[in-house]
Amino acid sequence: MRNYFAEFLGTFLLVFFGTGTVVIAQGNVLAIGLAFGLAITVSAYAFGGISGGHFNPAVTTAMLINRRIDVTDAVGYMVAQILGAIVASAAIRTFVSALKLAPHALGQTDFPKIGAGMAFFVEALVTFLFLLVILNVTSRDHGNADFAGLTIGLTLAFLIIVALNLTGGSLNPARSIGPAIFAGGSALTHLWVYILAPEVGAILAAFCSRALGSED
Amino acid sequence: MRNYFAEFLGTFLLVFFGTGTVVIAQGNVLAIGLAFGLAITVSAYAFGGISGGHFNPAVTTAMLINRRIDVTDAVGYMVAQILGAIVASAAIRTFVSALKLAPHALGQTDFPKIGAGMAFFVEALVTFLFLLVILNVTSRDHGNADFAGLTIGLTLAFLIIVALNLTGGSLNPARSIGPAIFAGGSALTHLWVYILAPEVGAILAAFCSRALGSED
Amino acid sequence: MRNYFAEFLGTFLLVFFGTGTVVIAQGNVLAIGLAFGLAITVSAYAFGGISGGHFNPAVTTAMLINRRIDVTDAVGYMVAQILGAIVASAAIRTFVSALKLAPHALGQTDFPKIGAGMAFFVEALVTFLFLLVILNVTSRDHGNADFAGLTIGLTLAFLIIVALNLTGGSLNPARSIGPAIFAGGSALTHLWVYILAPEVGAILAAFCSRALGSED
Amino acid sequence: MRNYFAEFLGTFLLVFFGTGTVVIAQGNVLAIGLAFGLAITVSAYAFGGISGGHFNPAVTTAMLINRRIDVTDAVGYMVAQILGAIVASAAIRTFVSALKLAPHALGQTDFPKIGAGMAFFVEALVTFLFLLVILNVTSRDHGNADFAGLTIGLTLAFLIIVALNLTGGSLNPARSIGPAIFAGGSALTHLWVYILAPEVGAILAAFCSRALGSED
Repeated sequence: MRNYFAEFLGTFLLVFFGTGTVVIAQGNVLAIGLAFGLAITVSAYAFGGISGGHFNPAVTTAMLINRRIDVTDAVGYMVAQILGAIVASAAIRTFVSALKLAPHALGQTDFPKIGAGMAFFVEALVTFLFLLVILNVTSRDHGNADFAGLTIGLTLAFLIIVALNLTGGSLNPARSIGPAIFAGGSALTHLWVYILAPEVGAILAAFCSRALGSED
Repeated sequence: MRNYFAEFLGTFLLVFFGTGTVVIAQGNVLAIGLAFGLAITVSAYAFGGISGGHFNPAVTTAMLINRRIDVTDAVGYMVAQILGAIVASAAIRTFVSALKLAPHALGQTDFPKIGAGMAFFVEALVTFLFLLVILNVTSRDHGNADFAGLTIGLTLAFLIIVALNLTGGSLNPARSIGPAIFAGGSALTHLWVYILAPEVGAILAAFCSRALGSED
Repeated sequence: MRNYFAEFLGTFLLVFFGTGTVVIAQGNVLAIGLAFGLAITVSAYAFGGISGGHFNPAVTTAMLINRRIDVTDAVGYMVAQILGAIVASAAIRTFVSALKLAPHALGQTDFPKIGAGMAFFVEALVTFLFLLVILNVTSRDHGNADFAGLTIGLTLAFLIIVALNLTGGSLNPARSIGPAIFAGGSALTHLWVYILAPEVGAILAAFCSRALGSED
Repeated sequence: MRNYFAEFLGTFLLVFFGTGTVVIAQGNVLAIGLAFGLAITVSAYAFGGISGGHFNPAVTTAMLINRRIDVTDAVGYMVAQILGAIVASAAIRTFVSALKLAPHALGQTDFPKIGAGMAFFVEALVTFLFLLVILNVTSRDHGNADFAGLTIGLTLAFLIIVALNLTGGSLNPARSIGPAIFAGGSALTHLWVYILAPEVGAILAAFCSRALGSED
């Protein structure tokens, strides 16, 4: 059970740091990207020794495909991740309410400027790239275990920065589910994009990274 | 005595970097968060080998509960931390005076936009999260000693960024005592929140992190 | 072939993070510098174990001169790097088009404020400095293998920040070729500067760094 | 001679990154602080294996007092550092001229808002703190060799951020001499403060850090 709690905590921190920086701190794009990314970095070093440090259902899917985790744990991880994100969004909503900010601006992901097809492509592409980095930097053959946490977090930071004006930069179904439940509206009706697209990107990356020898 | 002086220095740097970035440099939220957080990072690597690198009475309380420090040293650490913060605030006050800035704006913590109950909840929650990271990343069982300083500092940085518009983001009784003594006003009358809430969060985290195996 | 694909991916990430931060995120100079620089950092830790982590034809040239790579691989690396940059620029162009942004602003490099001679000097100088850092931090004699990825990325970040208002800060023929192909105009007619100048800087650095013992 | 050239290069990068970010990139306080600080970080990892990585006459003075360097090398280091700073300022001046910026704004240090006594106190204090961190993080007894470069650079970054509005944040005679020679005016007449005050701070830190066991 410890590993599920570790996944809960890491995903909580991701949504807490990230959407908190968006709506409570109203930071600039660099602050927002680093908040999401470095949440993964710190959680990987603090809790990764317990659970492996996925904090993202799409990551767990890729790890399942490449047999780094079994099905039971994969399901447990995903449930824990989604619960962590929901609890974090509940905390952010409490703060938003205390500060009398716009009640439905909770850092949810959406794509007001582009179509659903392009949004799907963007989320699938950036998650594909994210997983290629994750699977290779944690590869026993040619990875770097010490710097993996920093590498994965900085990669997420800049992928989110690039995607921010397109789709909000999710790359993580749990991260999108958390705020969408409380925000409702198009964040909820568009949620399928943020659940399916990262999973598609992760699945493609799981196969592709084998060609690079990530599972050797 | 060396360990007490190390605690004095680290807490001095925390308040000097952090409140200096707020009032002298007038940096943005990212600069402010990183100033406080990375002060802990650099102090942990420079002075942590002498004292263990607490630099915060709430951290010392959690370490005491989980028997990583004895009572005598815990008291000595807390006195040193509070003195370090006060001397740092005296230095910042000197600079504020030399620059003819507003004399009572010293980077003190307060909660003008929310009630005391919510402020207590915020400070307790973020300190709870901070200590969960600290106790696990320094865990002999599953921590990462090399990257602990970086992890702890980056965690503090983004917890402060999220809490900045709510409570000023203290997470540390010493950090709030320092400027409050010179600033007076509501920073002083609200000081009890910044002393009690982080301690409550730290005590809860000390017990919770055992469930994650931090003391195994 | 794995090493060529690693070079393709790293150079893709460089142009994707960097020019994406310029045109899609419209970040400030710090965000732009860090996007380009930390792309190299994360690619070095994730894919450097496969290819050595050049991601830049000028770097490959210097490595060839100092016999850290053979001619066949050097040519393969350069082709892979240029292809990675072109594909990344194609992706950015798709996003620019979806957002209905100015169609020819793709983060290409150019020097509207200075002459071609000065632009050549700037690009040769900063690439010279970049390679001095790379060749020494990866030196078997006195380098630091663990921190090489972080060192090289941060060096690139601040060299680009200094050069941004002069030449756009390329230091990398592939990084300039990618966007120039789609942007056309003076980015294309001035492309020779961004191909030749970094190569001249890299060649000089290859010889100079031997005087520092980088190849001992 | 290699160690002198390493000192030349590191100090060149310090002034090039730092004053280039001030005058060419016109970055915000965070960008400026990180430019100066991370120049030391990257130079420490790239060239520190050759020379020990001082890049600052005040650091060399403290190392001399604590017998980590002999007198001959100390003199050679200081000459190399000052030359590196001057050559970097000459390069920045060339860029300033090419961009037709204000010809005497070269990122020189000065204290237009405070008196000379306060400026002396500020520079001595921040250099004292800087050297306490350096001497302890590089201590054989309780330091951290791997993270020393990162620690020293981040410390410099935030000390400069705090001091920026007071004295420009030098902490380094060479860093002030370089631009002052070309800028003239009060940067030159006030140069004695930036030469003497850091040296006073460094000398005090050399003795103080022994009490912390830095030379054990």
